[in-house]
Amino acid sequence: MANQNGANSDLRTKFLEVYSVLKSELLNDPAFEWTDNSRQWVERMLDYNVPGGKLNRGLSVIDSYKLLKEGKELTEEEIFLASALGWCIEWLQAYFLVLDDIMDNSHTRRGQPCWFRVEKVGMIAANDGIILRNHIPRILRKHFRDKPYYVDLLDLFNEVEFQTASGQMIDLITTIEGEKDLSKYSLSLHRRIVQYKTAYYSFYIPVACALLMANENLDKHIDVKNILIDMGIYFQVQDDYLDCFGEPEKIGKIGTDIEDFKCSWLVVKALELCNEEQKKILFEHYGKDDPADVAKIKAVYNDINLQGVYEEFENKSYEKLTSSIEAHPSKAVQAVLKSFLGKIYRRQK
Amino acid sequence: MANQNGANSDLRTKFLEVYSVLKSELLNDPAFEWTDNSRQWVERMLDYNVPGGKLNRGLSVIDSYKLLKEGKELTEEEIFLASALGWCIEWLQAYFLVLDDIMDNSHTRRGQPCWFRVEKVGMIAANDGIILRNHIPRILRKHFRDKPYYVDLLDLFNEVEFQTASGQMIDLITTIEGEKDLSKYSLSLHRRIVQYKTAYYSFYIPVACALLMANENLDKHIDVKNILIDMGIYFQVQDDYLDCFGEPEKIGKIGTDIEDFKCSWLVVKALELCNEEQKKILFEHYGKDDPADVAKIKAVYNDINLQGVYEEFENKSYEKLTSSIEAHPSKAVQAVLKSFLGKIYRRQK
Repeated sequence: MANQNGANSDLRTKFLEVYSVLKSELLNDPAFEWTDNSRQWVERMLDYNVPGGKLNRGLSVIDSYKLLKEGKELTEEEIFLASALGWCIEWLQAYFLVLDDIMDNSHTRRGQPCWFRVEKVGMIAANDGIILRNHIPRILRKHFRDKPYYVDLLDLFNEVEFQTASGQMIDLITTIEGEKDLSKYSLSLHRRIVQYKTAYYSFYIPVACALLMANENLDKHIDVKNILIDMGIYFQVQDDYLDCFGEPEKIGKIGTDIEDFKCSWLVVKALELCNEEQKKILFEHYGKDDPADVAKIKAVYNDINLQGVYEEFENKSYEKLTSSIEAHPSKAVQAVLKSFLGKIYRRQK
Repeated sequence: MANQNGANSDLRTKFLEVYSVLKSELLNDPAFEWTDNSRQWVERMLDYNVPGGKLNRGLSVIDSYKLLKEGKELTEEEIFLASALGWCIEWLQAYFLVLDDIMDNSHTRRGQPCWFRVEKVGMIAANDGIILRNHIPRILRKHFRDKPYYVDLLDLFNEVEFQTASGQMIDLITTIEGEKDLSKYSLSLHRRIVQYKTAYYSFYIPVACALLMANENLDKHIDVKNILIDMGIYFQVQDDYLDCFGEPEKIGKIGTDIEDFKCSWLVVKALELCNEEQKKILFEHYGKDDPADVAKIKAVYNDINLQGVYEEFENKSYEKLTSSIEAHPSKAVQAVLKSFLGKIYRRQK
């Protein structure tokens, strides 16, 4: 266990070294005439927004690629390239978060003020989001231009970004201020939002990057994609659950999905399971800031034993995912998928 | 003349037909699971933001491609593809404008309220901007995937978007609220902002698209790029001029560059030409909303005969551009560049 942690922290250190290399390349990109001011601005913006998360998405590209190589030692170049792709996903995430925080008018992110709330940043943050997004093709072009899978990488990042923005759109338009209407919420809407807004960029793209690096054709891995999407949906249901029932110290925030009128798995499932009287309570008190309203929602959740329903969902999801994974012909691909599943099963943060 | 207008309006009609085709393809993109609501949202958003401009950038791809083909009749497919690339540029422009209007807190655009000011839109406009941006690679993939220049198209749009966002960044960070300092403004800063923020996407990319369609290697056309960048700078100086001295009915908006503390060619030139007394007035009154302040700035502009200085600049730019163009070895390329120059020389809108 100590060894394994040692290896992991090695990997993390190496991964962060690649961040420094990529940053320095971007700050000297010959496609732009830099000034001291603009270089300083971008450096501060990157350091504030890119490397401060858990880095799970990014690190999992290297993990996955290793497993696909079935234990063969990776060369320094392979480690660098897998890390660079991992960082592209972290950049993608940073881009989404910077813009989401503006749209949601959020206050904090990763334990610090949202970027747009930092002094002198304000609405410049929207352009910074765009800059973050534009760094991805700059990184890809610099390091993958001559790879046979270069165009597939570009297509992959483009498609996943499109899907994520489309998921964000249905989330935003179903929650338009002044039209808070619980009757629009359903399990199928929830699934659709989660699949597009989260699953593609959190679960599918890291594995897809590793597959491309291993010279695989993504069109032949639709089954892998489907399993990862299902895993992403399962992951988001956990997130919805933890927002209400998790321990704030563990998850690092105080959940406000009820107050925010979120299309959470919990409210959708509650709507499905409740009686008419309970439904009335949900309609009357969901999406309000008053702690008394929130308490009434939570009381309904308890009355219908939503925690038990969740546990059953968790077990069934695990079983289904495991049997789908074991049906896959390649042991290496199985290992990649099991590693992902192992990381999230019964997580409490 | 009547004939030429007839031909132009034919071209415009055909171009707008391609918009309908592209829109319908995007609204049925199989990469996303559409709902009625999301389809309606995107359709309204596209119609509001994409086709309402002058369409010069888009139309010029077809014009340029025709000229490169030296009078050979274009096939229906060629017209469609050149139009699709033209629309990608219009989409790119729409994306920038939607986000710029949010960042600048603008009120109107193309004679209607800015998209983010439309009821129920608000901050969803930021995501709509992202959606617009994401449509470009969707269009490219659908129609150019099998072309030998597909990857060059992706690289081109990525590089130009990066340059535009970088130009927008230096514009934004030199105009940070609370740090309004006219002494930072200079002709070289103005040139840098304009070159990156406007020239690449307004002048270079339409011709670059046409060159790629004609199977040209862009690396061999650095001279064409440089001429188009210079033309783009000249174009933006016109824009700065018209913001202050143009007729609002013709340019479709009431200029507010002075109020907005913009790094306009006018103020930069005025700083260069004014005496100490006039400089004091510029420093004291530039960037303020009060019409009395604005009037004082305009009085300085008149006292130093800025309109005359501008006319001289316009004539010199025209001469220089013409002689650069005539030095180009290819008559077809010369024709493309002259056509661009002809469209903007002495424009009043």
